[in-house]
Amino acid sequence: MIYQIEEALASVDQLLESTVRTDVRLLQDSSQHILGAGGKRLRPRVVFLSFLAAGGEDLSTVIPLAAAVELVHTATLVHDDINDHSPTRRGRVAVHARWGRTFALLTGDFLFTKVYELMAPYSPDYNIIMADACVKLVEGETLQAATAKAGEINQATYKQIVTLKTASLFKAGAIMGANMAQGSKTVVNALGDFGKYLGVAFQIVDDVLDVIGDPETLGKPVGNDLNQGSGALIAQNGKERSDGKGPIDGETDPIMAMMASLKESGAVEIALDEARKMSSQALASLEGIPPSKAKEQLASLVDQVLERQN
Amino acid sequence: MIYQIEEALASVDQLLESTVRTDVRLLQDSSQHILGAGGKRLRPRVVFLSFLAAGGEDLSTVIPLAAAVELVHTATLVHDDINDHSPTRRGRVAVHARWGRTFALLTGDFLFTKVYELMAPYSPDYNIIMADACVKLVEGETLQAATAKAGEINQATYKQIVTLKTASLFKAGAIMGANMAQGSKTVVNALGDFGKYLGVAFQIVDDVLDVIGDPETLGKPVGNDLNQGSGALIAQNGKERSDGKGPIDGETDPIMAMMASLKESGAVEIALDEARKMSSQALASLEGIPPSKAKEQLASLVDQVLERQN
Repeated sequence: MIYQIEEALASVDQLLESTVRTDVRLLQDSSQHILGAGGKRLRPRVVFLSFLAAGGEDLSTVIPLAAAVELVHTATLVHDDINDHSPTRRGRVAVHARWGRTFALLTGDFLFTKVYELMAPYSPDYNIIMADACVKLVEGETLQAATAKAGEINQATYKQIVTLKTASLFKAGAIMGANMAQGSKTVVNALGDFGKYLGVAFQIVDDVLDVIGDPETLGKPVGNDLNQGSGALIAQNGKERSDGKGPIDGETDPIMAMMASLKESGAVEIALDEARKMSSQALASLEGIPPSKAKEQLASLVDQVLERQN
Repeated sequence: MIYQIEEALASVDQLLESTVRTDVRLLQDSSQHILGAGGKRLRPRVVFLSFLAAGGEDLSTVIPLAAAVELVHTATLVHDDINDHSPTRRGRVAVHARWGRTFALLTGDFLFTKVYELMAPYSPDYNIIMADACVKLVEGETLQAATAKAGEINQATYKQIVTLKTASLFKAGAIMGANMAQGSKTVVNALGDFGKYLGVAFQIVDDVLDVIGDPETLGKPVGNDLNQGSGALIAQNGKERSDGKGPIDGETDPIMAMMASLKESGAVEIALDEARKMSSQALASLEGIPPSKAKEQLASLVDQVLERQN
């Protein structure tokens, strides 16, 4: 029986570590490399708190679920870093930079099969929700890459990308956690909405940190998402306030120039306003949930997401 | 109600076509590109015939399962072609060659999430079997890439690779098909063994065709697997019969030279002997199965695998 969030999170880490054990040593090493680097574990936290807020008690029943949600995220990080040519992740060298692109691709695939393995024992209800989130996540990543390639983005597309690639997994985690606690339909939906809005706010802040963050604190380079287009809303906000030609013309390092321009253009403030709006909606979603310590912790998670520096 | 294999296979194709429909047009186009190119559909055939041989009647109940098995295979083809730099597949340009590596990686991921979506409504029993096969498949691919990189292979490692990357999915398909028909444990295990041995035979023949096949008939280049190491057993057989320095020394095109050398060394015959041995074991596995038209079709599938030219 596990009742404490921190204890449950430690169990998630243990489960992740053991889940990726395999005779194919390279896969185990590369998987443990990325998993062992830590990360915020925000998604499993949302699963656990949703479970508790919906009336659940023993967190041990949701540990594989929480681990699976974290692992989906981790698998996409490994594949994203290949596509973005990002050299570091979570303060460590990226998997593709250490083991090469072929093995990084296979490591991401392996982690994804392990998500499936963790989820398989759950009933179809849960697998249907999780599969749907995984599909949306890949759709979002693809829409982002296609948009970046086309060089065109607007706020509607940005919102769609963020909802698909980030919010869908937060939402699925919250719903599955609440379902495991046998929460009422109202409570499950409210927590699902909470997850969705929290996810959108989280991603906007993530994109802002890519522009104004400190690489040391972040454990990954900045400006990379801008290069790949995921900081594109912020870029777009900046462009709309500039001379119309966009901020990158005639500069030797277009990414650094764009970042400097964005910081001065007010685009960051526009994005943060949107993140605050999403955070308010996340908090509003909690209104129908009965009072509990977990509910308070979910609310304070919103503040942490807004105020985070990494 | 569907009682005919060919009708069921046509339904699999329809389901695959509709399953990958998405608002993210690029993913739909790239997925339908690879799925529409056809392929042998050998794995769904094994699912259907195992279902019938175990006493099942209405094939429509196993169509999503058969489609999922085919889709796992298709997802790995897309990722393999990235890693192998293979320009063509199933007679068409490879996904990465047409859409680039980033989108090919995402297409493979997308197809894999669609496997999960197709499987999610089935009970945990099926998902546990399928997840296990998917894990093994990625382990096999990785072991192959690691072995190729190390430049060392022996027959034991080759067998391990083939069992993991190919036989595990054939076996899982056969077991799931037989389970769906509520086959007895004996029948289910026998069909699982059949699938495993058929899968090994199929992969050996595949590797042989990579050496002696006709690129036009195959719809993909030859010599590519040799280059990447999956024809490595055959290469190894060739080496063991050569002067010990290996067949590639001092040639300008080492792959073509190795292929020429292999054809003359008898290595191909050694590999085909092994394939015949596996085929016999596949047929022996069928002995405990009650007589039926499906059982005969499974037996003739073994011949087709041995005699295939593409």
